[in-house]
Amino acid sequence: MEHITSILKNIASPKDLKNLSLKQLQSLALEIRETIIKTVSKTGGHLAPNLGVVELTIALHCVFDTSVDRIIWDVGHQSYVHKLLTGRLAQFSTLRQYGGLSGFPKPEESIHDAFATGHSSTSISAALGMALTRDLKGEKHSVVAVIGDGSLTGGMAFEALNYAGHLKTNMIVVLNDNEMSIAPNVGALSGYLSRLRTDPKYSKGKDEIADLLQKIPHGPKLLKVVDRLKDSVKYLVVPGMLFEELGFTYLGPVDGHDTKAVLTMLQQAKAVSGPVLVHVITKKGKGYLPAEQNPDRYHGVGPFDLETGTVVKSQGPPSYTEVFGETIVKLAKEDDRIIGITAAMPSGTGLNSFAKEFPKRYFDVGIAEQHAVTMAAGMAATGYRPIAAIYSTFLQRAYDQVLHDVCMQNLPVTFALDRGGLVGDDGPTHHGVFDISFLRNIPNLVMMSPKDENELQHMLKTAVTYNGPVAIRYPRGNGIGISMDEKLQCLPIGKGEVIREGNDVLLLAIGNMVQEALKAAESLSAQGIEATVINARYTKPLDEELILNYAGRIKNIVTIEEHVLAGGFGSSILELFESSGLTDVKMKRLGLPDEFIEHGTQNQLRAQYGLTSAGIVDTVLNHHIHKNRTRKEFL
Amino acid sequence: MEHITSILKNIASPKDLKNLSLKQLQSLALEIRETIIKTVSKTGGHLAPNLGVVELTIALHCVFDTSVDRIIWDVGHQSYVHKLLTGRLAQFSTLRQYGGLSGFPKPEESIHDAFATGHSSTSISAALGMALTRDLKGEKHSVVAVIGDGSLTGGMAFEALNYAGHLKTNMIVVLNDNEMSIAPNVGALSGYLSRLRTDPKYSKGKDEIADLLQKIPHGPKLLKVVDRLKDSVKYLVVPGMLFEELGFTYLGPVDGHDTKAVLTMLQQAKAVSGPVLVHVITKKGKGYLPAEQNPDRYHGVGPFDLETGTVVKSQGPPSYTEVFGETIVKLAKEDDRIIGITAAMPSGTGLNSFAKEFPKRYFDVGIAEQHAVTMAAGMAATGYRPIAAIYSTFLQRAYDQVLHDVCMQNLPVTFALDRGGLVGDDGPTHHGVFDISFLRNIPNLVMMSPKDENELQHMLKTAVTYNGPVAIRYPRGNGIGISMDEKLQCLPIGKGEVIREGNDVLLLAIGNMVQEALKAAESLSAQGIEATVINARYTKPLDEELILNYAGRIKNIVTIEEHVLAGGFGSSILELFESSGLTDVKMKRLGLPDEFIEHGTQNQLRAQYGLTSAGIVDTVLNHHIHKNRTRKEFL
Repeated sequence: MEHITSILKNIASPKDLKNLSLKQLQSLALEIRETIIKTVSKTGGHLAPNLGVVELTIALHCVFDTSVDRIIWDVGHQSYVHKLLTGRLAQFSTLRQYGGLSGFPKPEESIHDAFATGHSSTSISAALGMALTRDLKGEKHSVVAVIGDGSLTGGMAFEALNYAGHLKTNMIVVLNDNEMSIAPNVGALSGYLSRLRTDPKYSKGKDEIADLLQKIPHGPKLLKVVDRLKDSVKYLVVPGMLFEELGFTYLGPVDGHDTKAVLTMLQQAKAVSGPVLVHVITKKGKGYLPAEQNPDRYHGVGPFDLETGTVVKSQGPPSYTEVFGETIVKLAKEDDRIIGITAAMPSGTGLNSFAKEFPKRYFDVGIAEQHAVTMAAGMAATGYRPIAAIYSTFLQRAYDQVLHDVCMQNLPVTFALDRGGLVGDDGPTHHGVFDISFLRNIPNLVMMSPKDENELQHMLKTAVTYNGPVAIRYPRGNGIGISMDEKLQCLPIGKGEVIREGNDVLLLAIGNMVQEALKAAESLSAQGIEATVINARYTKPLDEELILNYAGRIKNIVTIEEHVLAGGFGSSILELFESSGLTDVKMKRLGLPDEFIEHGTQNQLRAQYGLTSAGIVDTVLNHHIHKNRTRKEFL
Repeated sequence: MEHITSILKNIASPKDLKNLSLKQLQSLALEIRETIIKTVSKTGGHLAPNLGVVELTIALHCVFDTSVDRIIWDVGHQSYVHKLLTGRLAQFSTLRQYGGLSGFPKPEESIHDAFATGHSSTSISAALGMALTRDLKGEKHSVVAVIGDGSLTGGMAFEALNYAGHLKTNMIVVLNDNEMSIAPNVGALSGYLSRLRTDPKYSKGKDEIADLLQKIPHGPKLLKVVDRLKDSVKYLVVPGMLFEELGFTYLGPVDGHDTKAVLTMLQQAKAVSGPVLVHVITKKGKGYLPAEQNPDRYHGVGPFDLETGTVVKSQGPPSYTEVFGETIVKLAKEDDRIIGITAAMPSGTGLNSFAKEFPKRYFDVGIAEQHAVTMAAGMAATGYRPIAAIYSTFLQRAYDQVLHDVCMQNLPVTFALDRGGLVGDDGPTHHGVFDISFLRNIPNLVMMSPKDENELQHMLKTAVTYNGPVAIRYPRGNGIGISMDEKLQCLPIGKGEVIREGNDVLLLAIGNMVQEALKAAESLSAQGIEATVINARYTKPLDEELILNYAGRIKNIVTIEEHVLAGGFGSSILELFESSGLTDVKMKRLGLPDEFIEHGTQNQLRAQYGLTSAGIVDTVLNHHIHKNRTRKEFL
C-alpha cells in the first residue's frame, strides 16, 4: 500500500497537482479511491458519492485555484476528495469522528472550503452571490458550483439557475450527473438528462446539419422556411437546449472518469463568458464494485468489510426507521386512504417496504420537500391520509408549506420526522433539534414523540386516525428493544402518562429522553430521592391537566428534551405554568444550548450536553438538592 | 349601472354560465370588471390581477364544473372573478372587511374553492396531489392549477412541474402570463416566455416545416440527416419546448382577453391526456386605464377615486416601509458593502429608491425567497452586507436557508422583516405572527424590533455594522410620527431601555407594543398604579441584566407582543426567569392565541385580541389586581 499513496502523500495543497502528468493524475485517482475506501470502511461515511467524483475533483483543482477561485460543493457529502487534495490527508482518519474532520465542507477547516453545505440545492445560489460580489469588486476569479442531478430537482436550484441565466453573470455550474439522488432519480428533468446522455440527436450533429442546410436546393418558395431552419438550428441541434433557454451555455456531456476529457471541458468552461453548465457523467461508487452495484446502499454507509463490502450490521433492537416502515405497511393494509411520500429517501425513511407493497400509493418526489408537503395537502383535501416521511432537518425546507398549506386548512397530513434530535456523525447541518420550536407555534398541528418503538407504532395509528395535521418526531437509531404490541391502538390526543411515581422530584420528559428520565429516577431512588416520571407524549397539545396535577404537588421539576432549549418542550411547560398561574415551582429545563452542535456519535454528544440519566441525576442533585444539603433538608 | 349588472345578477352558480351566448359572456366580462373596480375602489384589494383574469375565469367556469372539477388559484389574490361567479356577488361588498369575504380562496367560504392559497407557487403541487388521488379513486374530473408567470419563478412550482411531467398524470396548468409578478418579472424563464409570446419561430410553422421536409430531395447521403431532422421537428418547431421537455403538452399562446379563443383552448386542454400547460397571455389591470398603465401601483391597492384612479393617500407619519427604504439609501451611501435584495417586491418592501440610486447593488430575484437568502449568504461570505428585505410571512419560505446557510456560518446578512405582526386585510395567509418563535431558536441570529420609526433607522445601522446575522422585525403601516434623528447610531447589541419608571407593575414590551404599553402606563397611573415600561428592543439576545434587575424588584409583570404566544417573546422571558432561578414573579403574557387569525383592519384585530393599551390595562387590573381588591391591597 505504501507505494500506492506516494503521489497523494506529496499533495500538500492543490498547487502540487499542477506538476503532475496526466498519467500521474490517473494514478492519484487510484490512490484517492483506495484511501477513501479504506478510511470509510472504518469510519463510515458517504462512500459512493465520493468515489464518483474522484477524477472530477482532481480536474477541478487542476483547472481552478481554490485559494482564489471558489468551488461550492452542493450537499457537500462528496467533498472527501477535495479534502484529501487540500491538506487534510493526515487528519482524514478522523473523518466524522468526534473532534475530527467534518464530513462536509467547512470554512473553519480550510480556506479551500468556500461555503458550508449539508442540505441539498444551495450551491448555485451561493455561487451566484459570490460571482456577483466578485463583479462588484472588479475581481476576475472563477466561481464554480458542483451540483448533482438529484440536487437539481430541488426548487431553489431552479430559482438560482433562472436568476443566473437572467443576469448573465460569469459562473460555472458543474452538473455531476450520476442518475441518482440517493435513490435512483425521479422527475421529468431526469428524463431529459437521460436523453442528453444517450440520444445522439441531442448531442451531436450541429456541424453536420449546418452543412446539410448549405446543400438543400434553395427554391424561392423554400427559401423562407430554410432561413427559419437556419435560425432555429440551435434549437434543433444544440444539446442542453433547456439550459440554453434558461440562459446558460451548455457544455457536454463528458465522461466524468476520463480525466483528460474533464480537464479539457473545464478549461473550455473557464473561458466562456456568462453562465455555463458543464454536464459531467459519473458513476456513483466508481472503483469499488459493491458500491457500483449498489450505490444506494453505499451512499451513506456505516463501517464495512473491505474485502466483501459486508456492512457491519448494527446489533440490537429494530430502529425507529424500521418500525415506522413496518407499521405503515400494516396501517395501509387496513386503510386505503394512506399514502406514503418521500423526498428522495425511500430507504433512509424506511418507506421502501411500503413502496414495494403499495406502489400506487407511494410517491418519491425527488429532493423536493416543499412540493412533497403541498402535494400531500392536496391529497388530504380529497379525503386521503398522506404520510410525508421527511427527516426533521429537511422539514425546515418545507416550513411554510406545513404552516400555510397543511395546518391553515387543518388537513390530515402526517409528518413522520425521523432523525429528530441529535443525528451524530453528520453534525450541525443535520441535527434535528429545532423542530419542536418551529412547529409548536403552528395552530392546529398535533405533535407527538414516542418514548420507545412500541409507542411509535401506536402514534402512527393515532396520527392517521386523527382528522388533522400531526407531526411525529422520533430519533435516529435503534429502539430500546421493548416488546411490540400486536394490535395497534389510538392514543388519546393530548394525553401523557405517568410511568413512575415519587414525591420528591417531577421529571417531565419527551421522546427518547423518557428512558433516560426513568434510569435517572432509579439512580435517584438509590440515593433516597423518589421521582415521578411523566412521559409527556405530546408537545402539542400538552396534557395540561396531568402536568398541572403533578406540578401542583411536586415542586421540584426537571424537563428533558433532545432539542434546543429556546422555544422547546420545556419552554412550553413554562408557558403552561404561567398561563395557569402556577408560580411556586422550582423548575430546571434540560436540553441543548443556543449553539450549533458539532458532529460526534449520538452518545458522545448526549454525554457532552448532559442529556443522559447521569446528567439528569446531576441536575436534580445540584439544582434541587444543593450538595451541602441532605435529603432531609431538601424535603 | 343597473342594466349593466343584469347578467351577473343572474349568475347564482357557475352552471348559469352554460346558457349564455358568447356575446353575453363578453357583456358579463364588462359587468364583472365594473363590479370589481367599484368595489375595490371602496374596499381596497388586488385590483390589477383580477382585471387581468376576467375572461379567463369566465372561460374556466364555462369549460369546467367546479362542483366536481377542481380549480386551484395560485396565490389566490386573483380569485375575485371566481368569487363573483360562484354565488358570492351579494357579499362582495364585504370583501376583505372584518367578518366579510376573504380576499383569497377559502374552502370554508364555498365548495367551489378547492384549496386555500395566499403564498405563491403552491398550486401545481396541490393540483397534482388532487389529480393523483382522483386517479386512485378511479374518478375522471379535471384538476386545474391557474398560475401566473411570476409564481412560476418560485422553486416549488418547478418541483411540481418536474414531478407532474414525470408521472404523466392528467392535469392542466393554466399559465396566466402577464409579464409581471407584482413588479415586472425577472428571470431567464421570463425571457423564454417572452420569446414564446413574440417570436413566430417559437410558435408557428410546425406543419410548414413538416411539409418542407417532404419536398427536400432525398439523396442517399442526406437521407440520414433528414431523418434526424424529421425526428427533431418537434424540438425545432414545437413551441413551449421547455415545457415539453418537462413532460407537459404545451398549448398556446392564446390571447387571454379573447373569450372565444380561451374557451377553445381550454376545451382542447381538457381533452389532452397527461399533463398540459395552457399559455394564456393577459394584461394586468385590463379595462381600467390607470391600472393598465401602472399595474404595479394597482396590484394591491387601497381605496381610490373611481374617476381619476387617485389612490386615497394614507395620512400621517411615514410608514415603516418608507423609513426602511430611505435609511438603507443613506447607509449605502456610506458603505459600499451594502446590497439590497428583494423577492419580487421592490415597492412593497420600500427598496425602490435604493434600486434607483444603486442599481448595481440591487437584486430583485423574482418570487424566490430561498434563493434570495442563500445568494445573500454567498455575498456575505465575501465581505458584503446584504439586506434581504422579505415580509415576515414570506420568510417562512426560506426558513432552512436562514438557519442552514446564513446563521450556521454566522454570516452578516440583515433580514428586514416588514409586515411583522398583524397585517390586516390579507388575513391568515399573510399575518407575520410566527417569526419570533421560528427564528429565536436559531443560534447566532440577533433579533430586534423597533418601538418606532426612529428606532428602526438606528436598528438598520446597527444591523449592517454587526458582524453576524440580524433580523429586524417591524410592522405594516405608519410610524408614530416621532421626530427622526439626523445621525444614525449603533444601538448596543442585546440592550433594552427603560422608558418609564414605576414600582407597581413591570410592562415588558417589544416592537410596536411598546407604545401601547406606554399608553397603558399612563392610564394606570391615573388609577394610582405606577408601571415601569421596558422596551426590550432585542428578542435575541435578551437584555438579561436589565430585565432581571427590574423583575427582581417589581413582581407584577406583563409581556406584550404582536405575535403568537407559543414560543414568542414572552416565552423567552419565562425561559430567562427559569434559567436564572427567578420564581417569585406574577407573570402574564399578552399576545395572540394558538389559532389562525382572520382578516380585518389591524386595529380591529388588535382590539379583538387585547393588544391595545386598554387590553394591557385590563390585564394588569384583572390579573395583578383583582377587581375586588383596592390598590392598597395589591401593593
